[in-house]
Amino acid sequence: MSDSYQPDKVWQWKQASGGKFANINRPIAGATHEKELPVGKHPLQLYSLATPNGVKVTILLEELLAKGVNEAEYDAFLIDILEGAQFSSGFVEINPNSKIPALVDLSGEQPVKVFESGAILLYLAEKFGHFIPSEHIKRTQCMSWLFWQMGSAPYLGGGFGHFYAYAPEKFEYPIERFTMETKRQLDVLDLHLANHHYMCGDQYTIADMAIFPWYGNLVLGRLYDAAEFLDVTSYRHLMRWAKEIDEREAVKRGRMVNRTWGEESEQLPERHDASDFDNVTKLSAK
Amino acid sequence: MSDSYQPDKVWQWKQASGGKFANINRPIAGATHEKELPVGKHPLQLYSLATPNGVKVTILLEELLAKGVNEAEYDAFLIDILEGAQFSSGFVEINPNSKIPALVDLSGEQPVKVFESGAILLYLAEKFGHFIPSEHIKRTQCMSWLFWQMGSAPYLGGGFGHFYAYAPEKFEYPIERFTMETKRQLDVLDLHLANHHYMCGDQYTIADMAIFPWYGNLVLGRLYDAAEFLDVTSYRHLMRWAKEIDEREAVKRGRMVNRTWGEESEQLPERHDASDFDNVTKLSAK
Repeated sequence: MSDSYQPDKVWQWKQASGGKFANINRPIAGATHEKELPVGKHPLQLYSLATPNGVKVTILLEELLAKGVNEAEYDAFLIDILEGAQFSSGFVEINPNSKIPALVDLSGEQPVKVFESGAILLYLAEKFGHFIPSEHIKRTQCMSWLFWQMGSAPYLGGGFGHFYAYAPEKFEYPIERFTMETKRQLDVLDLHLANHHYMCGDQYTIADMAIFPWYGNLVLGRLYDAAEFLDVTSYRHLMRWAKEIDEREAVKRGRMVNRTWGEESEQLPERHDASDFDNVTKLSAK
Repeated sequence: MSDSYQPDKVWQWKQASGGKFANINRPIAGATHEKELPVGKHPLQLYSLATPNGVKVTILLEELLAKGVNEAEYDAFLIDILEGAQFSSGFVEINPNSKIPALVDLSGEQPVKVFESGAILLYLAEKFGHFIPSEHIKRTQCMSWLFWQMGSAPYLGGGFGHFYAYAPEKFEYPIERFTMETKRQLDVLDLHLANHHYMCGDQYTIADMAIFPWYGNLVLGRLYDAAEFLDVTSYRHLMRWAKEIDEREAVKRGRMVNRTWGEESEQLPERHDASDFDNVTKLSAK
């Protein structure tokens, strides 16, 4: 970055820039190659990766199954975003925005395509009638927090995370800007959770499931190696909530699905049956 | 920005930085001062400003009133974010995130507080049964696009807009990064609108009302003085859609509410009655 930089009058696509994820950033949309998506045996077909946005949905699906909602059985296929799988014609047909997760519901007469993690959470919660309050005011609060997560996390992930952990250089101004906002968001949650057991009161909902993979994992030290920098232990109500959610069996399972990094015992790259989790445990115990 | 910058081990709040909006950026949440919000005579109380997120809601309210939904009558009070009005105790009680818009529905037994523009759009569309498809698949698509807007616009507003128009210097790396993403988003919309009259097909919905104030105004040259830089005329399907929506009377009214800048004939800082629009026209014609 030079002080003398002035943007061109009309922006032009230059060679790849953008640090770790440079090769998947494009200024144009649409498919780059023809390829159909695989389809498994279950009513719900998920195409995803165990990023925070992906994990939101697998946590909800595992929570639904843990409640005995067998209609929530699903196949989770891996979309390797570093390899550009989100730009296949099959994926773009489900999600023209080429981002994971994407869901197809095959249970009805016509396939229902859903994209955006928040929309998928709402779709599944409404479909099965779980993890979303039925009472009007509580439901409204839950929706405000669900939308809050969707509009806030880009500052955490695409802002703070990118500039603190992934950009090719440490650029002071954007790090300062996005750290300030990330800490504000952590404080919003901490103040709220000081007086609420879960995000929407006493009921564990899709708002918690949306927020946990980003802000829960952040304070648990799992994102961007930034726990000390952000002084995460100072957000003690948020930490209390994060630790409680992290202990849930369905959350542990949800975090494993479509994961291809980290501990071997936490990786289940594709999930097609509940027994798949047992096989990981057995394999990694060997 | 210096090449030798290394973040501190633990981030500390330094003096104000952040360009145009530096004084309203804080790393902590909560109220800064005690002040109650005013309350008008209508069932719906809106606390907002005519930024793109604010305009989403006033467009929907004006569209509802244009359809004859008299229960959508509203008072729109101005929240001057440059003066820190979003940090008053009254505002924080409605929206702990201290961002406009925020809504209180006084029509029922208990006040219902709603925050996040996407949540407010959904709340009002469901309450009145308009501008959201009733058919399952179309409704699902509409929700995906509504959530898409919420998760995408931070890259346009907090990313591209900030670094291109408001940051104290022209920093090349973030401008490149967020321009690339903004152009991708414009192309996502353009490809979609090549085959769809509105975002969710033949019905004008809250997805259009969420997307128009950001991406519509952007291609119409009203945001960030960036029309030439982004080559907005190349997105011709998006432009067709933006021009059509911009011609709607309810959209013209919605854009005026809580506006305190631009043409005098487009400013209605507070709106408490439908006749308020006529008074602006009369005044500015003098």
